[in-house]
Amino acid sequence: MLVSALLTSLGINSGLCVLFFILYSILRNQPSNYEVYVPRLLVEGNSKRRSHFNLERLIPSTGWIKRAWKLSEEDILSSSGLDAVVFMRVITFSLRVFSFAGIIGVFVLLPVNCMGTQLHEIDFEDLSNNSLDVFTISNVNSGSKWLWIHFSAVYILTIFVCYLLYHEYKYISSKRIAYFYSSKPQPRQFTILVRGIPVSVGSSVSESVESFFTEFHPTTYLSHMVVRRTSKLRSLIETRAAFVSFKSRYGAAIAFHIQQSINPIQWITELAPEPDDVYWPFFSSSFMRRWMSKLVVVVACILLTILFLIPVVVVQGLTNLSQLEIWFPFLKSILTITFVSQVITGYLPSLILQLFLKIVPPIMEFLSSIQGYISHSDIEKSACNKVLWFTIWNIFFATVFSGSVLYLVNIFLEPKDIPAKLAVAVPAQASFFIAYVVTSGWTSTASELCRIIPLIYSLVTRFCKSTDELEVPSLPYHRDIPRILFFALLGITYFFLAPLILPFLLMYLCLAYIIFSNQFKNVYMPKYETAGKFWPIVHNSMIFSLVLMHAISIGIFTLKKLSIASTLVFPLPVLTLLFNEYCRKRFLPIFIAYPAEVLMKKDKEEANDPAMAEFFDKLVTAYQDPALLPIRYSVNSNSLNSPLISSADV
Amino acid sequence: MLVSALLTSLGINSGLCVLFFILYSILRNQPSNYEVYVPRLLVEGNSKRRSHFNLERLIPSTGWIKRAWKLSEEDILSSSGLDAVVFMRVITFSLRVFSFAGIIGVFVLLPVNCMGTQLHEIDFEDLSNNSLDVFTISNVNSGSKWLWIHFSAVYILTIFVCYLLYHEYKYISSKRIAYFYSSKPQPRQFTILVRGIPVSVGSSVSESVESFFTEFHPTTYLSHMVVRRTSKLRSLIETRAAFVSFKSRYGAAIAFHIQQSINPIQWITELAPEPDDVYWPFFSSSFMRRWMSKLVVVVACILLTILFLIPVVVVQGLTNLSQLEIWFPFLKSILTITFVSQVITGYLPSLILQLFLKIVPPIMEFLSSIQGYISHSDIEKSACNKVLWFTIWNIFFATVFSGSVLYLVNIFLEPKDIPAKLAVAVPAQASFFIAYVVTSGWTSTASELCRIIPLIYSLVTRFCKSTDELEVPSLPYHRDIPRILFFALLGITYFFLAPLILPFLLMYLCLAYIIFSNQFKNVYMPKYETAGKFWPIVHNSMIFSLVLMHAISIGIFTLKKLSIASTLVFPLPVLTLLFNEYCRKRFLPIFIAYPAEVLMKKDKEEANDPAMAEFFDKLVTAYQDPALLPIRYSVNSNSLNSPLISSADV
Repeated sequence: MLVSALLTSLGINSGLCVLFFILYSILRNQPSNYEVYVPRLLVEGNSKRRSHFNLERLIPSTGWIKRAWKLSEEDILSSSGLDAVVFMRVITFSLRVFSFAGIIGVFVLLPVNCMGTQLHEIDFEDLSNNSLDVFTISNVNSGSKWLWIHFSAVYILTIFVCYLLYHEYKYISSKRIAYFYSSKPQPRQFTILVRGIPVSVGSSVSESVESFFTEFHPTTYLSHMVVRRTSKLRSLIETRAAFVSFKSRYGAAIAFHIQQSINPIQWITELAPEPDDVYWPFFSSSFMRRWMSKLVVVVACILLTILFLIPVVVVQGLTNLSQLEIWFPFLKSILTITFVSQVITGYLPSLILQLFLKIVPPIMEFLSSIQGYISHSDIEKSACNKVLWFTIWNIFFATVFSGSVLYLVNIFLEPKDIPAKLAVAVPAQASFFIAYVVTSGWTSTASELCRIIPLIYSLVTRFCKSTDELEVPSLPYHRDIPRILFFALLGITYFFLAPLILPFLLMYLCLAYIIFSNQFKNVYMPKYETAGKFWPIVHNSMIFSLVLMHAISIGIFTLKKLSIASTLVFPLPVLTLLFNEYCRKRFLPIFIAYPAEVLMKKDKEEANDPAMAEFFDKLVTAYQDPALLPIRYSVNSNSLNSPLISSADV
Repeated sequence: MLVSALLTSLGINSGLCVLFFILYSILRNQPSNYEVYVPRLLVEGNSKRRSHFNLERLIPSTGWIKRAWKLSEEDILSSSGLDAVVFMRVITFSLRVFSFAGIIGVFVLLPVNCMGTQLHEIDFEDLSNNSLDVFTISNVNSGSKWLWIHFSAVYILTIFVCYLLYHEYKYISSKRIAYFYSSKPQPRQFTILVRGIPVSVGSSVSESVESFFTEFHPTTYLSHMVVRRTSKLRSLIETRAAFVSFKSRYGAAIAFHIQQSINPIQWITELAPEPDDVYWPFFSSSFMRRWMSKLVVVVACILLTILFLIPVVVVQGLTNLSQLEIWFPFLKSILTITFVSQVITGYLPSLILQLFLKIVPPIMEFLSSIQGYISHSDIEKSACNKVLWFTIWNIFFATVFSGSVLYLVNIFLEPKDIPAKLAVAVPAQASFFIAYVVTSGWTSTASELCRIIPLIYSLVTRFCKSTDELEVPSLPYHRDIPRILFFALLGITYFFLAPLILPFLLMYLCLAYIIFSNQFKNVYMPKYETAGKFWPIVHNSMIFSLVLMHAISIGIFTLKKLSIASTLVFPLPVLTLLFNEYCRKRFLPIFIAYPAEVLMKKDKEEANDPAMAEFFDKLVTAYQDPALLPIRYSVNSNSLNSPLISSADV
């Protein structure tokens, strides 16, 4: 790709971004669009639906940009919870990493690359006609001493990222504990989900639970609620699962942590989600069924990953003009126009890819939902992981090797050759990924601002219904976190190969910071709270990016005939993985369950709180499937111990 | 290798076995050897040191064989504990597997192999001059339909082994629970080890423990004992570790299962071993130090594995006569004698290998001991695992590929080609491994009976000391379990390749059953009890053997141009691994810690037992380092809370 093609893409996308910003600045001032752009403020009563017209509304306002930029972490924490804070910290973390990397990359590595003559000397007179490859490491002469600068850069960046990762993990851990301390009593803190409840002949599930927990947890057991599902005959049946509530958080934790039954696949305990976070539709209580559905989902994910490669490969073919001319000969005359060809090579491929990728998060969310998770937040967390690895595999590796599925799988069956193959293939795709950052990063983030689909939906439905309840959306973390992490992976792996990518990445991160700050303030409201459980995914992804960078650098230095450097890189991935292992031991347990110290302190604080009695009253009936709620009004106070089958048969 | 060479080896080893049996039958009747052959009976007072001579003592008695064979599981359980039962069940399990496999192998597969003409037709007239290869699958013609019999055999054996594994795991789990129910109160059941105790300025470790557990476990906390080490200045210092005892088993389990502190690397809890099982010398309490020593040990194990290959390769060279003649030309005349050459090819290599292997278990035990385990039993369990994988790698893979270290490592870096390479190399070594079973299996198991080294030691020391306390040895599980498992691996992998190995293996297992039964009865006394924790190692090893067999069969069927069969084997490893995963979920938790149900039932049973008060009194001082015991007599009743430094400085 030539510099001019990149500039074209840059021009189009900058234009689009500015357009989106102006459009948003005008549209958000129109009271009729408040439901789309400030639903949160509407619901909270901070903004009223005015309908009188004035001219001011047509002048784009830019004050929101400043307000969004200045939004503090405390504001986000109090308004959108810890998950939003973690999300914003992913962006600020990346900003820090790539500011540092950008300085080294642009002011040190880039000049070194340009000075090389391996490919061809840079043509300063007609800069836009240079191939982008002269800015990459490919242009540094083989065996050149200058490569030691790249070598040092790899070491310095790794140390810097690990240092930041450690402090970030520590900070978010402490935030998580602080968040727990400051939280009001929540049903989930006192409740566990028990599955695989064995039932002896002649007794009900409810009786079985009651007798088990009064026997083994006599002092802490409070109440339980058997999960009921509608069977095919439309009658209610008791599943062998129940939400069991305790009188203290510590009591619930004890029952959760210790294996209850001699048979480990009976009385399986799990932390309960918040009542409105429970995912009811696919509530399977049998151990084998959940295990099987998990297996099926894993297979489905692998199949999806393999099949998805086909459109990606076709899209990659589009960047190749001569291939296109062979396929569609009638386009030949159009393709010879410089501007058209530049649009096609610089912009279209990543746009099409982008559209394909749009459907992945919902699919992954669906797969996670049938995998046996009991809460929306767990489903989202699992989907986030799936989308991340899907993106890395299908965008990064498929683009880099742009080969068939079999070729790609083959590469990973010969782990020894991976560095060498990466070293050849990764730098070659530098220009594609620079264009990808600009297209996919800039434009689609800016389009997030305008919320085009909700806007259209609002315009269409405006005339049909009027006084409906306004639903405030929540940010789909499983869509946006993997995207940011993927850009971070691109940044880290291309940092020493093609540092030209870094300024574009920084621009993207700034955009993302402003836009998501603004959207958290005005649009999104959290539906549930994982209290920072997304961070371990972020951490793992960063570690993977680092190790990938090390693998590529080993290959590159071998390829560039500097095998001492190649050997000296070896300790780096080992140390990085050891660092990761240390972090897993030092921080991860805090993200799985709260420690005894914290639980007991919190319990003691509230021991004499008169409000707790009322809370426990509510807790007893908190875990009801909302779909079955009408039945709730008909049950008597003894409902906990009598199955609802009879009343449901009516 | 020719049949005659195998027959020679067979002759020598059978002779040796018979010799050992006769020798043992005579020696054990000599009262002067009672300390060597029946130390256990001596200690228990069932056998007295008689010294009057009679002629009967010189006539070999065979009654012990019958008694050993008839020893029931209950006898072993009551006399040697559950670990001995598990050990014997490894043998009986293998006996069942290979009886079944033997019938299929000898009566179905062996005739099919002999009928083939791929290598050469079998020479029935001069049977002993046939190469052993005609009895292997290599002799079956490529593409032959007869190979479907081997294919079916692979499926049938896998199903049979998995079925047995499931029932065995289930049986041993239930035995483990029953053993716990029937056990007397033991200090370890009420105690946990706490490490990484943070100490605030001006307070001691002991004070820190006291205040933490009285705050967070007020109802169950009983007492604690800070671990003290001798520093370089020979004064006692408190480490940041303590044994903390509780008033109930359930109380200890709660403290063990729940992360105590906000910082997961402080207040780390571990199940305590029995007081006399504690391994004091290398008691490191710092998280980082233990982590580092673990890493160092892992690296050391890898290095040992790599360096060990050198003598193995040399030994392998000995089986090659022409190579030997080149190295030692002066031996040429001797090597041409048939008998000598047969001894060298059939017997010497495995004997030398055997001697080398003898030093491995102590080395691995040493490595495990510095890895940070706190009990002898954990060290032995870890050493058992290390020795097993060491043996599989260094005997199986090194022999099979008989190449350099780099070649061997290379194979595992190209996982795709493993089946193909195995298919070529494994059948070629069939005769070596048959000889190995006979030499290493038969003779060294029979030599276990005679306890040659303890016998010599006893003869030497007899005249130096006389009235010393008799020490009853315990069976080194980390030496013998891996050996049996390795033979099982050989049996499973060679079952369909060279079924001729199976009768020899069955013979070995029968020998092992009789000999170890006898030794448990007369010689070994358990020093500590893991209550069956060795079984998961056995289970994993069997699963690995099955998957290895599948990998080889995939390669073999491809090599034999029956690629449909090769494809149809694919589901087998997947299903086997799924089965293993299921077993991990279904049974493994029982082997890690006891469930709440069991603990509470046991606690309740003893709640009103007047003997418990006495037990708790003893429990308070149970965890004392025996090396520091003299000091114990000088401490007053308040010793628990006052550090011993002052008294130790004296």
